[in-house]
Amino acid sequence: MGSEVTSVKEGDFVSAEMHVACGKCFQCRTGEAHICQNVKIIGVDANGAFAEYVVIPESNIWKLDPAIPQEYASILDPLGNAVHTVLAGEIAGRTVAVTGCGPIGLFSIAVARAVGASTIFALEINQHRRQVAKQMHADYVLDPSKDDVRKIVKERTGGLGVDVVLEMAGHPDAIRTGFDIVRSGGRVSLLGLTSKPIPLNFSEDIIFKGITIQGINGRRMYQTWYQMTALLTSGRLDLRPVITDRLPMKDFAVAMDRFEDRRG
Amino acid sequence: MGSEVTSVKEGDFVSAEMHVACGKCFQCRTGEAHICQNVKIIGVDANGAFAEYVVIPESNIWKLDPAIPQEYASILDPLGNAVHTVLAGEIAGRTVAVTGCGPIGLFSIAVARAVGASTIFALEINQHRRQVAKQMHADYVLDPSKDDVRKIVKERTGGLGVDVVLEMAGHPDAIRTGFDIVRSGGRVSLLGLTSKPIPLNFSEDIIFKGITIQGINGRRMYQTWYQMTALLTSGRLDLRPVITDRLPMKDFAVAMDRFEDRRG
Amino acid sequence: MGSEVTSVKEGDFVSAEMHVACGKCFQCRTGEAHICQNVKIIGVDANGAFAEYVVIPESNIWKLDPAIPQEYASILDPLGNAVHTVLAGEIAGRTVAVTGCGPIGLFSIAVARAVGASTIFALEINQHRRQVAKQMHADYVLDPSKDDVRKIVKERTGGLGVDVVLEMAGHPDAIRTGFDIVRSGGRVSLLGLTSKPIPLNFSEDIIFKGITIQGINGRRMYQTWYQMTALLTSGRLDLRPVITDRLPMKDFAVAMDRFEDRRG
Amino acid sequence: MGSEVTSVKEGDFVSAEMHVACGKCFQCRTGEAHICQNVKIIGVDANGAFAEYVVIPESNIWKLDPAIPQEYASILDPLGNAVHTVLAGEIAGRTVAVTGCGPIGLFSIAVARAVGASTIFALEINQHRRQVAKQMHADYVLDPSKDDVRKIVKERTGGLGVDVVLEMAGHPDAIRTGFDIVRSGGRVSLLGLTSKPIPLNFSEDIIFKGITIQGINGRRMYQTWYQMTALLTSGRLDLRPVITDRLPMKDFAVAMDRFEDRRG
Repeated sequence: MGSEVTSVKEGDFVSAEMHVACGKCFQCRTGEAHICQNVKIIGVDANGAFAEYVVIPESNIWKLDPAIPQEYASILDPLGNAVHTVLAGEIAGRTVAVTGCGPIGLFSIAVARAVGASTIFALEINQHRRQVAKQMHADYVLDPSKDDVRKIVKERTGGLGVDVVLEMAGHPDAIRTGFDIVRSGGRVSLLGLTSKPIPLNFSEDIIFKGITIQGINGRRMYQTWYQMTALLTSGRLDLRPVITDRLPMKDFAVAMDRFEDRRG
Repeated sequence: MGSEVTSVKEGDFVSAEMHVACGKCFQCRTGEAHICQNVKIIGVDANGAFAEYVVIPESNIWKLDPAIPQEYASILDPLGNAVHTVLAGEIAGRTVAVTGCGPIGLFSIAVARAVGASTIFALEINQHRRQVAKQMHADYVLDPSKDDVRKIVKERTGGLGVDVVLEMAGHPDAIRTGFDIVRSGGRVSLLGLTSKPIPLNFSEDIIFKGITIQGINGRRMYQTWYQMTALLTSGRLDLRPVITDRLPMKDFAVAMDRFEDRRG
Repeated sequence: MGSEVTSVKEGDFVSAEMHVACGKCFQCRTGEAHICQNVKIIGVDANGAFAEYVVIPESNIWKLDPAIPQEYASILDPLGNAVHTVLAGEIAGRTVAVTGCGPIGLFSIAVARAVGASTIFALEINQHRRQVAKQMHADYVLDPSKDDVRKIVKERTGGLGVDVVLEMAGHPDAIRTGFDIVRSGGRVSLLGLTSKPIPLNFSEDIIFKGITIQGINGRRMYQTWYQMTALLTSGRLDLRPVITDRLPMKDFAVAMDRFEDRRG
Repeated sequence: MGSEVTSVKEGDFVSAEMHVACGKCFQCRTGEAHICQNVKIIGVDANGAFAEYVVIPESNIWKLDPAIPQEYASILDPLGNAVHTVLAGEIAGRTVAVTGCGPIGLFSIAVARAVGASTIFALEINQHRRQVAKQMHADYVLDPSKDDVRKIVKERTGGLGVDVVLEMAGHPDAIRTGFDIVRSGGRVSLLGLTSKPIPLNFSEDIIFKGITIQGINGRRMYQTWYQMTALLTSGRLDLRPVITDRLPMKDFAVAMDRFEDRRG
């Protein structure tokens, strides 16, 4: 378009929103650009952060406060998912279950803690991730393959169930459990992607309980970025336990191998 | 308990909320009595409106404005379901699809119309009910067994889909259609009860579109009753097309037969 | 900037949002462009609609549905103020007082009516405007200089006061009355500009009653435009009584004289 | 009424909501009992907590978790005011100014901190209270009689102003300052009672900035009590700095003297 970039210059410490919204559709024009009808995702529709160079609209660049640790700058995209999900409804003084403790689930524990969730249940079958969940200060870290999650949650919530379920697994069992343990009138916020249809008992799971289910996509542009920045610069979030290794750029291949190992 | 009834007396023109809430659980104490954990439903847990006499707590009696037509007094329970569902989110200036035009679906059309919905699509396979839907002033009355609902809705909403789906059928096909035609960022409010699990494609149907799903149970006690009264006394709701027959009490058996016939 | 205009072309039937937002400040980046920190208003900061030509960013042009009457196109700016104010909180089934019946106040009556307000009180000292308020279907049209507004409102709202006050006068007496007649827990939405400070009794007027006061500025960009378009194209708004005269462009001077006369 | 008390028995560790709501008015019946039209306040309309015995409806008794420190039990009424005020709108990741650091203002700092406020400005002219505000972990503790509050707040918020003002002073100067430093689109939550009318510049202070003002009365019955309990039992609130002295019941007179001294 020939217009000049003025808000950012070479050498700035920045991160970027990887969803590029069209700016013209109904969603973009009503403050919902994160669900733009014509969105392009850098890394999906164009070369992403593993490429040598990335082309990004000026408006998608987020200048970072120097107070934010450099290593955090590389994880703001998934952290934003967590912030968006946690803050999609009331959370202060609420009981919360995080189903699935991959990186975004783990971040969600930290965020929920920082914004006043009262009791946090972390559900995860992978032992390493359960350990990290403890380091993120979840109150109860449960293994759904062994623990009687439903019983434990009910006992610890006065028989009520949790106010909020943050679904980060995308696995049918985790989703099933989430609907089981949410209290009547609670909310289930869904971020974890599923690969196939999952049967839901609408009457028992949703209607009689009068719950609210939210589909969570990306991060609000740019409300979530402001919230994330505020939480980070005020020192409320300690994300270090999630960052297991720090390698120089040249050891890229080693990093990817380790990543694949852990995932397994 | 021995306390005296003071707010109502013999001969008053009244209706009643048939959910009797415990008043002591978390939901009751936080303004959510309609999803009370210990609710008793008159007509389910005790003799209901077909019995000779009904025992009801004083607080559940709703005194009616004499301006409300007498025949409307007998349908306030389902009308309340409709009012609760329609007003569970933004509706003014919004496009709406009502999936399933039984009495509550038909009432929902009238309520949505009265509170400023812009375009209302009514979906119903029964011909008689489609005729009534027209009389309730739905803009488009569609037969999902014949019409290409998805195509028509997209065309009439600038390719966007509807802002709001009011699910009143409880049938898998209707639910399926509702999720297909709701726009990204829209809401699906579920009232129709389902008899068996329905598979949902969480990623495509909920998460990528960033929609909100609400389970709707009963009527808010007593917010919905105030809203319903206000809409009725201000003359905004014409419900007469839904009332097909008016019979004296002695013809009770005839009424029930007709009801069963229509249903079939 | 050298970029080409593609969404609109010569001859299109359009209106325009006259607030030009910067797109870069916190408010613009969080869906609140209508209160942009660096806003330029066409007609205030640059030549406006009385000039021979007006320069407007492409994104501020609003293409109009041909179904919208041509004369309505010239009043969308104040109509948008009314739509924004009415829809700034719950309105369906609510009692409403409009204090001040200039054009925006009169539009507010029509909008509140269209979106299901139950009882509408219009307060206005000018006789001509009271007549138009009646044509806009206000339920009670009162003259605060003669009528006992407080008494009448209390009587007609079961002693409660109104749920919603839409303040469109900017006059101390109207504002005073608004705070008097709003019910505990109600909202007062302020649009009318005041020229000097007005004393408020915070304890009695705001705190004990637990009310919410909203400052309303402009129109939401572009949520309000979508809502306005939806209400207009669905035929819910009859604004003709507000349009007292229709003159050809050459009689511009006559129109301005008449305008000044009426105002007096 | 002759009904028996069952939910509480002699010896229980309890606190109590001192607003006795009628249960029958519009507000009580729509989840807004804290602004009941017929409220009786124990301590105002009947003997209060300084009397030998107090009569309280069973429903107003709040059983306390043994994990809550005993001395906290005596300050739950003002703590509830703070919780209600802080949680009356969005707060996570938001900048906050608390104007007036009496006990409720100080509690508000702790609560805002616990629920993720990013930067907290405490404004107070009394030196002792400023010291306590520091102990409550306010980020900036300012003396409005000496510090250039407006300048400091603007500098520390990127020129924006604060997202949230919690007005706890009830003094014209504090209120004036609150309106000066709140950002466009922010909220001002008013709890501090004023003794006389305060002039407000509606256009500049409220309308152009598009802010929201909330009158805050009491505590939500009983939402606030649940939230307060959750925050206390999860150990998120350290209120000890506010409790300056602990005296045995027999030294009641000494306590009252000290209270009067401090106040001066």
